[in-house]
Amino acid sequence: MKLKRLYTFINSDLDIIEKALEETIQAEHPVLKEASMHLLQAGGKRIRPVFVLLSGKFGNYNIDEIKNVAVALELIHTASLVHDDVIDNAELRRGGLTVKAKWDNRIAMYTGDYIFARAVELMTNINKIEAHQVLSKTMVELVIGEIEQIKDKYDWDQNLRTYFRRIKRKTAILIAVSCGLGAIVSEAPIQVQRQLYRFGYNVGMAFQITDDILDFTGTEKELGKPAGSDLQQGNITLPALYALRNENLRKEIVTTFDPNNEEKMRYIISLVKTSGGIEYSKEISERYLKKAHGIIKELPNCKEKTALLNIAKYIGKRKF
Amino acid sequence: MKLKRLYTFINSDLDIIEKALEETIQAEHPVLKEASMHLLQAGGKRIRPVFVLLSGKFGNYNIDEIKNVAVALELIHTASLVHDDVIDNAELRRGGLTVKAKWDNRIAMYTGDYIFARAVELMTNINKIEAHQVLSKTMVELVIGEIEQIKDKYDWDQNLRTYFRRIKRKTAILIAVSCGLGAIVSEAPIQVQRQLYRFGYNVGMAFQITDDILDFTGTEKELGKPAGSDLQQGNITLPALYALRNENLRKEIVTTFDPNNEEKMRYIISLVKTSGGIEYSKEISERYLKKAHGIIKELPNCKEKTALLNIAKYIGKRKF
Repeated sequence: MKLKRLYTFINSDLDIIEKALEETIQAEHPVLKEASMHLLQAGGKRIRPVFVLLSGKFGNYNIDEIKNVAVALELIHTASLVHDDVIDNAELRRGGLTVKAKWDNRIAMYTGDYIFARAVELMTNINKIEAHQVLSKTMVELVIGEIEQIKDKYDWDQNLRTYFRRIKRKTAILIAVSCGLGAIVSEAPIQVQRQLYRFGYNVGMAFQITDDILDFTGTEKELGKPAGSDLQQGNITLPALYALRNENLRKEIVTTFDPNNEEKMRYIISLVKTSGGIEYSKEISERYLKKAHGIIKELPNCKEKTALLNIAKYIGKRKF
Repeated sequence: MKLKRLYTFINSDLDIIEKALEETIQAEHPVLKEASMHLLQAGGKRIRPVFVLLSGKFGNYNIDEIKNVAVALELIHTASLVHDDVIDNAELRRGGLTVKAKWDNRIAMYTGDYIFARAVELMTNINKIEAHQVLSKTMVELVIGEIEQIKDKYDWDQNLRTYFRRIKRKTAILIAVSCGLGAIVSEAPIQVQRQLYRFGYNVGMAFQITDDILDFTGTEKELGKPAGSDLQQGNITLPALYALRNENLRKEIVTTFDPNNEEKMRYIISLVKTSGGIEYSKEISERYLKKAHGIIKELPNCKEKTALLNIAKYIGKRKF
């Protein structure tokens, strides 16, 4: 089943978002425009706009207002991907050439800056200071998450808490805020705003853990990048952290590790895959999804609630 | 005469700004904190906060409110310097090691992002949507200016219009906005807001042209970096553009140019210095300052007006 099928009733509003995304990036400067469009056209799941719109339905839904939030959050996510590409020397993202690979690091950095600035500009259409406060705090957390990811790279001694804090900042908060801001801007009851935020947080954690699992279990075709890329770049995720808890495996992984040796890396990936780390990570992800389920159950029944529940379920089962 | 002497009556408020700047950068993450503090401690002229405060005095001046704007603008300026250093491989900035040189490009990029995000966060203390709109548009222009600077590098055929548009985006708008936002936030009359904005714009243009002159005429000790750095990095500024208009000089400069050959670069710098380009640039700078003077003359007499006039005068005469 395709993700899009889960919320057909907002598809026409999502088309509006898609158009607004393109329009926002129409910069005068041709290089910038090309770089930005390139990235937007590569497409994503638009999971953040979907959450904004669905959450907005729990209040006074006004597409002309709420679209600004949906577009701004997708832009912030996009900008962070662009800056992430600068960092990781990632040659592939979503199966296409990264902005960095197609142009260079300097253009990639400023493309990210430009997209950030446009997101902030767009948000100024929302005359609710609370929304701005929530968003700017999110941006600060997002950046700290990125810095932590650099700091934690190749650190075989990091613990699970470090990992969870990192993915919270890197991924979960932005998804939580997508739900939360949708509800805030549409002036849903405070209690509902909080529930949707917590729902988004738990779904976001599960989303990132699933991503980290797929990086080991997916094929290059499914992922649009080679399997095991995270570990190769020194990004130690949950399945690997689980494997590292075993003394023997730990010794084997740390001494064999050589990011430039494909054969050795394939061997390490197989070690992680057979360590029980995948099953363990799936269990943790399921726990977050269950929590998300429990939170949203308390909300009044409606098709938006069903859609949110189905998306949460989908995230636990997706293959790429 | 020292710049600080021109506005002693706001010095205690400037101390508040300085303290707030430090507090804002207190991040949990030690690397980030060190990188940011490093940059703030290197110190600058704090010309943007000065303009914010002085302009604010033309309305209902409230330091607790306006300090947010002053700090945010200085942070945005700082963040753009950090990202600028990533670009230019500049090893020296303000006489000290750049964030990039001391850490690396990745940390420098995220330090810039972090400072940007903190600036936006700080502005959310201001409950005036107009202020946010002005600031976010400024950030967009600033980034476009940076991209243009990359695009225009080593382009010997660029015309004066390209140069003026570039320094407008890169420098003048942020100074214009410092004056404009000071007036907006303190709710000065609309007419005064506009005059202060235009004053800032003209001072900003003169400020950047003077910078570009000093890059040729200053000593390494005065500049905190080698003279002629701009040209060496392919950044063609007004004095050089003037020299390039002379067919013979143009041929000589373009064929001799070799950024890795110190002797050749010294020769080119001497060609620019004797081309009349310095005098021409000074004349243009004077013209902007005169315009700034004319605009501010219309404002009611007060010590803030005198201070603004003196700062404008100082900028035309500064040596570094």
